[in-house]
Amino acid sequence: NTYRIAVIPGDGIGKEVVPAAIEVLNKAAQLDGSFQFEWTTFPWGCDYYLETGKMMPDNGIEILKGYDQIFLGAVGMPDLVPDHISLWGLLIKIRREMKQSINVRPAKLLQGLPSPLRNPNGFDFVVVRENSEGEYAESGGRIHSGQDEVAIQNAIFTRKGTERAMRYAFEMAKTRRGHVTSATKSNGITYSMPFWDEVFAKVGKDYENIGQVSNHIDALAAFLVMKPENFDVIVASNLFGDILTDLGGAIMGSIGIAPAANLNIERQYPSMFEPVHGSAPDIAGQGIANPFGQIWTGKMMLDFLGYHELGTKVLNAMEATLAKGIKTADLGGTATLRDVTDAVLHHLQ
Amino acid sequence: NTYRIAVIPGDGIGKEVVPAAIEVLNKAAQLDGSFQFEWTTFPWGCDYYLETGKMMPDNGIEILKGYDQIFLGAVGMPDLVPDHISLWGLLIKIRREMKQSINVRPAKLLQGLPSPLRNPNGFDFVVVRENSEGEYAESGGRIHSGQDEVAIQNAIFTRKGTERAMRYAFEMAKTRRGHVTSATKSNGITYSMPFWDEVFAKVGKDYENIGQVSNHIDALAAFLVMKPENFDVIVASNLFGDILTDLGGAIMGSIGIAPAANLNIERQYPSMFEPVHGSAPDIAGQGIANPFGQIWTGKMMLDFLGYHELGTKVLNAMEATLAKGIKTADLGGTATLRDVTDAVLHHLQ
Ligand SMILES: CC(C)[C@H](C(=O)O)[C@@H](O)C(=O)O
Ligand SMILES: CC(C)[C@H](C(=O)O)[C@@H](O)C(=O)O
Repeated sequence: NTYRIAVIPGDGIGKEVVPAAIEVLNKAAQLDGSFQFEWTTFPWGCDYYLETGKMMPDNGIEILKGYDQIFLGAVGMPDLVPDHISLWGLLIKIRREMKQSINVRPAKLLQGLPSPLRNPNGFDFVVVRENSEGEYAESGGRIHSGQDEVAIQNAIFTRKGTERAMRYAFEMAKTRRGHVTSATKSNGITYSMPFWDEVFAKVGKDYENIGQVSNHIDALAAFLVMKPENFDVIVASNLFGDILTDLGGAIMGSIGIAPAANLNIERQYPSMFEPVHGSAPDIAGQGIANPFGQIWTGKMMLDFLGYHELGTKVLNAMEATLAKGIKTADLGGTATLRDVTDAVLHHLQ
Repeated sequence: NTYRIAVIPGDGIGKEVVPAAIEVLNKAAQLDGSFQFEWTTFPWGCDYYLETGKMMPDNGIEILKGYDQIFLGAVGMPDLVPDHISLWGLLIKIRREMKQSINVRPAKLLQGLPSPLRNPNGFDFVVVRENSEGEYAESGGRIHSGQDEVAIQNAIFTRKGTERAMRYAFEMAKTRRGHVTSATKSNGITYSMPFWDEVFAKVGKDYENIGQVSNHIDALAAFLVMKPENFDVIVASNLFGDILTDLGGAIMGSIGIAPAANLNIERQYPSMFEPVHGSAPDIAGQGIANPFGQIWTGKMMLDFLGYHELGTKVLNAMEATLAKGIKTADLGGTATLRDVTDAVLHHLQ
């Protein structure tokens, strides 16, 4: 049983943390014994763009479709390539063209990683983010110029896309603590968000045993700081999910550790696993980047492939490493990327 | 010199905290000696709606135009009146019709009020929120029904509205620590936010001595948790400002304390001063509501009327009260509304 994984290390520290996470995933596969990974690396990203004028070849999407999953590092070198080129030419292009319409991002208080919160109370929640439409619809335009100029952005919510994210959230809640919070703003945003609320109420009827509540995004952001332990699964639009997951990373103690999965839940195309953090060009190439985000992202890939116990083992190995204080400078430690990777490999059993 | 203030206590605890704040403001006026307030109370809100079917009379806006400023408590009784009726029939209606296009909300670490952050590092920032358009534009609609239904929300940004908020933020930064952060999301939202960035760059050229930087809203939300002391003035769209100011309240230790000013900076119509907190129907009528948010809101009215030193005295009296541990239950204390008000009056000198 072999999984063929397309690897896109991307830019900056992506090129360092991806190989580290692959070592960990190979060891996990060995431990399990029933499957193996076959990794194929693609050198796409900003360097590729500077050479060829494209973030990936024209047939890049076709190439990726030949793989089971995609394992991505980080994209972006804002000093050399404008974000709208690097992100929309690779990261967001893959999310869209592979119909990775669900983005899943957990946030969990980890032993050994001090939260900036005084009383973080062992929070453990997952944000299910609609990943294909909403506020990120490429729809809008401008009229007039100079002082009369007006810009319009159309947020587009389909019932299909909205319902898909919500059902996924409710199904996930069944496997966790049985509670879903919907991020809304129907008191201020009067077309899309009342629609969002209606769909949530309707889908919720199919999950009578799951707790369900709506919070306005402003209050919800504040709650993540004041009582993050109250949340289990949060379902959110593309933009709200983006904001809440960075907040999730912040209260964990570092965005550098937060993982993400862009899922094609129909399993018609490969899904893409990428950490939340960026390419951190300032520290790239020095062997001091933090690999936890990428390793945790690998755990999410194991989960999606059905190896939940193995995924838990990877997370446990990470926590054991952190608990020993073996961490990179961004987390307040003195360990190198190599030290951290070795410690995770050592604790993975 | 008499300021004629229209008072709308509104719903729930609004009816208790507004009179308390008025006592404080009257004492402040006495201290100053050069002016006085004349308060006229309007019983508009959800009770009024349940009796008359309207949140305020048809000529309510005309009536309010006869006053210098508006001092509002809280609006909403979600169990009795749907939010879209109570908010859009009073709060948002006044913001819009009085062209209160700038919303100002400070966040500051106060002595005696424990922040949920472990190292809050004495932060002190102000969010200048565009208050008239953007994501809150009442523009959008739906097409099709059932599984094919699509909802569209149009966010509308005018150069005039955007520039007004940004100029106000830069002018404010001149009187503070000289730094403006713009909340954007131009890497994901590709029509309105690049426009926002362009306007920020253009307005910024007129303020060469003011530091200026753009942060994406996701990162900015995380920064408010990780290093809130880095911010001075933040300028944000209607939605982003809404989210960031609730976060500001959260890191201060309580949303119950955060103040807000809805400004008609042209001074053509009255401005409206209202705390960020809601009507808290669950604790209303018991004399235990926290008046700090309303009192601080009163301080913002003093500032807007030009009495900055007096405003600072009010804030100092609040801080002295908090530092003595005199605070209501929501802040972890045992004081009543009366106790807190008396203590603030006592310290105001
Ligand atoms: C009640 C709601 C519409 C309002 C807003 O979003 O503007 C509130 O959250 C606020 O910030 O004053
Ligand atoms: C880079 C950006 C477009 C992206 C997003 O907003 O989706 C990022 O913030 C993320 O969350 O993956």
